[in-house]
Amino acid sequence: MSLVVVHTLPELREVVASWRREQLRIAVAPTMGALHEALARADRVVATIFINPKQFDNAADLAGYPRTYESDVEQLARAGAHLLYAPDAAQMYPAGFATTISVRGVSEGLCGTFRPGHFDGVATVVAKLFLQTGADLAFFGEKDFQQLKVVRRMAADLDIPTRVIGCPTVREADGLAMSSRNARLTPAERGAAPNLAATLFAIAERLSAGDAAPSAIARGVADIRAAGFREVEYLELRAEEDLRPLQTLDRPARLLVAAWLGDTRLIDNVEVLLRGRAVAASE
Amino acid sequence: MSLVVVHTLPELREVVASWRREQLRIAVAPTMGALHEALARADRVVATIFINPKQFDNAADLAGYPRTYESDVEQLARAGAHLLYAPDAAQMYPAGFATTISVRGVSEGLCGTFRPGHFDGVATVVAKLFLQTGADLAFFGEKDFQQLKVVRRMAADLDIPTRVIGCPTVREADGLAMSSRNARLTPAERGAAPNLAATLFAIAERLSAGDAAPSAIARGVADIRAAGFREVEYLELRAEEDLRPLQTLDRPARLLVAAWLGDTRLIDNVEVLLRGRAVAASE
Repeated sequence: MSLVVVHTLPELREVVASWRREQLRIAVAPTMGALHEALARADRVVATIFINPKQFDNAADLAGYPRTYESDVEQLARAGAHLLYAPDAAQMYPAGFATTISVRGVSEGLCGTFRPGHFDGVATVVAKLFLQTGADLAFFGEKDFQQLKVVRRMAADLDIPTRVIGCPTVREADGLAMSSRNARLTPAERGAAPNLAATLFAIAERLSAGDAAPSAIARGVADIRAAGFREVEYLELRAEEDLRPLQTLDRPARLLVAAWLGDTRLIDNVEVLLRGRAVAASE
Repeated sequence: MSLVVVHTLPELREVVASWRREQLRIAVAPTMGALHEALARADRVVATIFINPKQFDNAADLAGYPRTYESDVEQLARAGAHLLYAPDAAQMYPAGFATTISVRGVSEGLCGTFRPGHFDGVATVVAKLFLQTGADLAFFGEKDFQQLKVVRRMAADLDIPTRVIGCPTVREADGLAMSSRNARLTPAERGAAPNLAATLFAIAERLSAGDAAPSAIARGVADIRAAGFREVEYLELRAEEDLRPLQTLDRPARLLVAAWLGDTRLIDNVEVLLRGRAVAASE
C-alpha cells in the first residue's frame, strides 16, 4: 500500500469510511515519533501534518517553526503510513470558527506558564483531529509529556472514543530527545544539547536514591546552565498521574525541563522511580 | 416499543450500538419541546434528563430549578421516546474532570451577560451528549435561541457529525412560550406572563413595518414593565445568522428578551422579517 495524501476533510472522511466498512482498526499519529508504534498496533494509520497557528503563542515562533513537508511525506511513505492528512488553516478553522477547548489542572504550570494559550490550541485541534478521523487509537510521544496528559484528559472528559496511547521518547545515540526543533541548533549547540537529557537522568537517579528534591533540582538547573543553556524555564518534579507539583518523591513522578539553547527552546522529561535506579521512559 | 431508561454511559452505548448495527437513524432530544420533531424525523430517539450543575451560574437557581423526573418519564413514555438517558452529575463529571468548551461570538451578550459561565456549561455538556449518544441528529428548541446557536457553532467547529436542528417554539394558547420554569409562576404571574410574547410580536411587527429599532425597543421595554415584569434584562434585535447586534433591520433578525416576573426569569424570542408581517417561528 502506498501513501495516500489528502488535504480536505471530505476526502479524509471518505477514506476512513471505506476502512470502517472493512472493520479495520484505525490509528492517528499526529507526530513522526509516534508513527512506528501506531503502525505496529493498528491496521491503518493516518499521519497528520498541520502547523497549528493556535498552538503558537508568538508569531516569531510560528514563522521559525521548521517546515519540512517534502521530506516528511517521503519519511511517512517509507515508514508505511497509509494516509497523510495535511489540511491548511482555512480547512481546520473556516471563517466564523469560534470554539476553544480548555483543560484545567494538567495544563497549568510547566509549558502552560511559558506558552500562554498553547494547550488550549492543542486540546482544540486534537479534539478536531480525533473527531475528523474517528480513530480508534491515537499515538502521542511522551517527549511532550504535558501535551500527552492534556490530550488524554480532554478525550476522556469529552467522551471521545479515541484511546490515547503514549509512546516512549525516541533519543539520538547521545541521549538528545528527537524533535523537529533540533534542526535549528548550530553545530556547537548540537554538541551541548545532550547535556539536557544527561542532567535529567542524573537528577532523577539522585531523587530515586533519596536526595531531597529542592537541592537536587537546584543542582540540575546549575548543571544545565553550565552546559551552555542560556535560560532554564523550568525544571520540576511532578506526579506521573496528574502532574501535580511534588515537594518530595512520594509517588511515581516525572522530572520535566524546558531550557533555551541559543534561540532554540528544548523540552525533555524522564520518569522518576520511587525506588532504585531512575529509568528513562524509552528503556 | 416501550421507553427504556438508562442512567450510565456503558448502558447508553450498548443500546445505541445495537441500533447502529440495524443502521437506524438516531436522534437526541435534550428538551421535552424538541421530542415530537425528533420522533417525526428519526428512527430512534434518545431523550435526556440531566440537571447540569455547570449551566447554573448561581446555586439558588440550580436548587430552585423544577425537578419533575417522575412526570417527565411518564410524558416521554407516552410520547413514544425510545430511550431515556438520565445520568447523575458523577456520571457526567467524574472526579478529575477538567475540560471546558467555550464558544465566542454567539455566546456573547444576551443571556451570556446575565448568566456568566452558562454557555460554557451548555457547550461542554452538549458536546458530551453528542459524543456519548453518537446521534445523527439533535433537536433543540428555538425558545432558547442563543443556546441553539452556541450548540450549532460548537458542533460545526469541533467536527462532531451530529446535525443540529432547531424546533419552533411551542406556545400555550395565550402565546406564552412553554418552559419548565412556567410552573414556578403564581396564578397572578401566570396571568401576566403572556404579555412578554405579545410585546415581542407587536414590536417585531413594528420593526418589519419600518419603525426605528431604538424607539420600538424602548417602547417594548416599557410595555413589558407595565405588564408587571419587575426587570427587563435585555430586549435586543440581533441578526438571525450570527446573533450580531443590529441597530437597523437590514437583514433577517430575531428579537430576544429576558425578563423577571417576580422570582422567575422568563426568556422568549421571535423572528423579525425584513418586510411584511412579523411571523412567529412556530407559525
